[in-house]
Amino acid sequence: MANLGFIGLGTMGGQMVARLLDKGHTVIGYNRTRKRAEWLIEKGMRWAASPREVAAAAEITFAMVTNSAALRAIAEGPGGVLAGIGAGKVFVDISTVAPKVSRELAERIREKGADMLDAPVSGSVITLQQGKLSVMVGGRAQTFARAKPVLEDIGPKVTHVGDNGVALAMKIALNLQLAVQMMAFSEGMLLAEKSGIKREIAVDVMVHSAIASPMVQYRGPFVLQQPDEAWFDVNMMQKDMLLAMELGRQLNVPLPTTTVSNEFLTAARGMGMEKKDFACVFDVLAKMSGLEP
Amino acid sequence: MANLGFIGLGTMGGQMVARLLDKGHTVIGYNRTRKRAEWLIEKGMRWAASPREVAAAAEITFAMVTNSAALRAIAEGPGGVLAGIGAGKVFVDISTVAPKVSRELAERIREKGADMLDAPVSGSVITLQQGKLSVMVGGRAQTFARAKPVLEDIGPKVTHVGDNGVALAMKIALNLQLAVQMMAFSEGMLLAEKSGIKREIAVDVMVHSAIASPMVQYRGPFVLQQPDEAWFDVNMMQKDMLLAMELGRQLNVPLPTTTVSNEFLTAARGMGMEKKDFACVFDVLAKMSGLEP
Amino acid sequence: MANLGFIGLGTMGGQMVARLLDKGHTVIGYNRTRKRAEWLIEKGMRWAASPREVAAAAEITFAMVTNSAALRAIAEGPGGVLAGIGAGKVFVDISTVAPKVSRELAERIREKGADMLDAPVSGSVITLQQGKLSVMVGGRAQTFARAKPVLEDIGPKVTHVGDNGVALAMKIALNLQLAVQMMAFSEGMLLAEKSGIKREIAVDVMVHSAIASPMVQYRGPFVLQQPDEAWFDVNMMQKDMLLAMELGRQLNVPLPTTTVSNEFLTAARGMGMEKKDFACVFDVLAKMSGLEP
Amino acid sequence: MANLGFIGLGTMGGQMVARLLDKGHTVIGYNRTRKRAEWLIEKGMRWAASPREVAAAAEITFAMVTNSAALRAIAEGPGGVLAGIGAGKVFVDISTVAPKVSRELAERIREKGADMLDAPVSGSVITLQQGKLSVMVGGRAQTFARAKPVLEDIGPKVTHVGDNGVALAMKIALNLQLAVQMMAFSEGMLLAEKSGIKREIAVDVMVHSAIASPMVQYRGPFVLQQPDEAWFDVNMMQKDMLLAMELGRQLNVPLPTTTVSNEFLTAARGMGMEKKDFACVFDVLAKMSGLEP
Repeated sequence: MANLGFIGLGTMGGQMVARLLDKGHTVIGYNRTRKRAEWLIEKGMRWAASPREVAAAAEITFAMVTNSAALRAIAEGPGGVLAGIGAGKVFVDISTVAPKVSRELAERIREKGADMLDAPVSGSVITLQQGKLSVMVGGRAQTFARAKPVLEDIGPKVTHVGDNGVALAMKIALNLQLAVQMMAFSEGMLLAEKSGIKREIAVDVMVHSAIASPMVQYRGPFVLQQPDEAWFDVNMMQKDMLLAMELGRQLNVPLPTTTVSNEFLTAARGMGMEKKDFACVFDVLAKMSGLEP
Repeated sequence: MANLGFIGLGTMGGQMVARLLDKGHTVIGYNRTRKRAEWLIEKGMRWAASPREVAAAAEITFAMVTNSAALRAIAEGPGGVLAGIGAGKVFVDISTVAPKVSRELAERIREKGADMLDAPVSGSVITLQQGKLSVMVGGRAQTFARAKPVLEDIGPKVTHVGDNGVALAMKIALNLQLAVQMMAFSEGMLLAEKSGIKREIAVDVMVHSAIASPMVQYRGPFVLQQPDEAWFDVNMMQKDMLLAMELGRQLNVPLPTTTVSNEFLTAARGMGMEKKDFACVFDVLAKMSGLEP
Repeated sequence: MANLGFIGLGTMGGQMVARLLDKGHTVIGYNRTRKRAEWLIEKGMRWAASPREVAAAAEITFAMVTNSAALRAIAEGPGGVLAGIGAGKVFVDISTVAPKVSRELAERIREKGADMLDAPVSGSVITLQQGKLSVMVGGRAQTFARAKPVLEDIGPKVTHVGDNGVALAMKIALNLQLAVQMMAFSEGMLLAEKSGIKREIAVDVMVHSAIASPMVQYRGPFVLQQPDEAWFDVNMMQKDMLLAMELGRQLNVPLPTTTVSNEFLTAARGMGMEKKDFACVFDVLAKMSGLEP
Repeated sequence: MANLGFIGLGTMGGQMVARLLDKGHTVIGYNRTRKRAEWLIEKGMRWAASPREVAAAAEITFAMVTNSAALRAIAEGPGGVLAGIGAGKVFVDISTVAPKVSRELAERIREKGADMLDAPVSGSVITLQQGKLSVMVGGRAQTFARAKPVLEDIGPKVTHVGDNGVALAMKIALNLQLAVQMMAFSEGMLLAEKSGIKREIAVDVMVHSAIASPMVQYRGPFVLQQPDEAWFDVNMMQKDMLLAMELGRQLNVPLPTTTVSNEFLTAARGMGMEKKDFACVFDVLAKMSGLEP
């Protein structure tokens, strides 16, 4: 069992720590607000006063934060990971940030004699709890080999996709498809409904068809009943779309359905739905069709 | 066991007849060229000289043809279904045609004292053989009740979605998503590849992710190796896209990702790939990215 | 001066006849409802009881009707142009129909020993009255030479663009740009307005800029004040867009901005604006931005 | 006559200085490389060793640089504009940068007791030489009043569009339309050409039609013959598109035709045309249509 650290104990990060504790690992953790960490401390997690303390104490330190700015905030400064990490240690970033940002941090980590992996996950808290999470890993092969057993305790499917930063590219390449599939699903649903098919029946047929990805199976029913709380809200989805579009421009990859779908996320915000799950692009399209959704 | 008829014995139609014979039904069949029917005649199917003869002999007559023109060709004229069908019989059209065309034929069938259902299927020959085909049915509830047991012998999932024509609308609403999902998959694949991820690895991650619909699982590997024979070629896919766009205009449903994806099917034709599986939109996009696919 | 015929005396057709009479030509005319023709009869136009009578009497017969169905209605049957036209005469169709429909009619006209030109115009009634109309002509060079002097009395810019049907293709190729330019203008206007620029000022800057086509100069001010009567309503614009998309598919030309713009015409209909000038795509986009237009 | 300064003496900036000298103003100028300024020094411009020196000497200092980074480079540091500018002076930035960047600099300029205007222009060097340039100005009304007479010596049409930064928003709102109009023009041109119309004839009809903006009139002929040197290359156009898309997301304005057009600029880069004028989106689309352009 490994001596682990974890920075960022929000919904996803917290569940990961709980899972690692259950598997028998020791975990030292830090979060901006201690309150969200209480239940983990009760489960046996050690509390640290700063990211620096986590990185200094643990063999492998994980981080799960919101965006590039948050990653910099935990990495830099006197209380940051860079100040605490030392030779032979590993920093594994699970956050979704731009590949370039991740690569730059990896270089600075290496200057300390440590190494870094980017290890974004595909799936939600529910996927994690079902033990079906998929982890993509970017970085050196031997560092990957060290972290792999622990990552397998988070999600069973762990794939080394290439050098530093490329796991993030992979994650972004997946996530753009969530938004496009939801748009296409909405177009199909509205065609079905306006042709005279009950919405429940159309959803039922679709979630059992050739287009029924897990995304469609999870979010399809949202057009019948919006969830009380967004799983992945418009702004979060658009953050990933912007990373995709930035990457597309750097690498000269045209992204026609991605960018068109992104405009409907913008419209969702324009129409006052930014706090809703991104499945609300259905509502944007419904209103354009003259339906009150 | 029922006394059935089947018109149109191509790859899909032929496999359906084989399946119905295996289940113990008697089948009388017709095809434009008798040669493609020989193997079914050997399996016990009775041969008919015309669609009219099929419709006159069978209690329930199925048809599986290419498009609206082909449907009219088997329905009309002295040798057509309308000339043979009589009171109490049922005509079940499995073809994908415009909902309006289907509804018009249904009215003419009813004038003969018979009734009609539209029963398009979602899935390929492989799905059929795996016993996983999904059948959507449009038409009157009591006619549906009569045909249902036989339809369940074709595909296990049989859903009555509404009145005549609406099953076709449902099918079209599904199929547009095939093309859009393939486009989004291509955009993601190219981002991954140009970020430095091996194509095989990117496909592997994607077919195990939240966007992995059966469509993605079947066609994802096509970007590694195009199939010798198209499962569903560019022109066939575009035929369904045009039906979707026609319906969208009739019903005032904007279809932004559908129409954008359709332009890439047009480009596939422009670039000489009309005989390829529609998965070749990946190649269109790859060329635009400067990759030789 | 020539001995002319004119079928279809709506707003545009009527003004053309008035113009031809003013130039000294004799004109025999027909319209579905005689009432709309009264003012022209007062101006000296001879009234005919049918398209056949017009075609039989005139040396060159013009037609200006709504669509392919209307063109067939005046061409076929016992009272139609085909029944009246004879050797050496010319039929000039100014309507916007599919190039294929026009070519088919041209062949039937030729079987009568006559010849046909397609001569769609670019511009509105106002352009016509200002003497700035542009006429594109498709057909044989020597037939064009005969009709040219008369066409120059309609609009000063008369261009022979190629064989039968291609003038229609040219017209369609122009008109798709009207819709796309209006969409792009709307996107720019909303960016300007939401950045804090008064709508009047933004319109003023735009109509004096590098993007100020006559279309932008005419329709730009519509975002300040919708006209009481549509110049070219959503359905008329969409009819031309569909002709463009049909042609694009026949000729393998991808039309990405055309099709995306067309979806916003569909949305305009969905949102109850089908009777408005197509400039109302601005209102669709404004609502998606959260503005009450 | 005014005592002016000018920083950034590239093609456009240099021509503006020449124009201001011709009008009788005194100008002190600075450029990163002195060589490009020699001809202006010969015409009477005083040379300065730094942006600071320009700002200290002139009553009104203009700047015309490439992007936000270049603007910061001339503004900050010991040799920068901020170090030289003093109470009562005016800084007029003609560059195209993000509105936010401009507003931030304006605040820092005001802390020095001076004031700033953003004054981007619409048009090219040729428009400037023809005396038809359009200048949009953002900033305080009384500062605008001071700079206006000089701005009128640059371009005759000078419009105060609002507060600091909004002239840039106006410029961006205009420029996105250049790219979309070029795309729509390309779609139309290819439809015309593949319908059998000679390219020269189609261009001639289009530049005399309702869609003939100055952009179409300038760039339409580029599809016949690419210019030796790009007027505005793919990367420059895409820089403005990205500013538009950034603004669209901040202000919740969906930009469907803008983003779709932008993907074709990305494709132009992917296909090796980044140094060409952005009119080369025609070539991208031509290749997708199977034409060798």
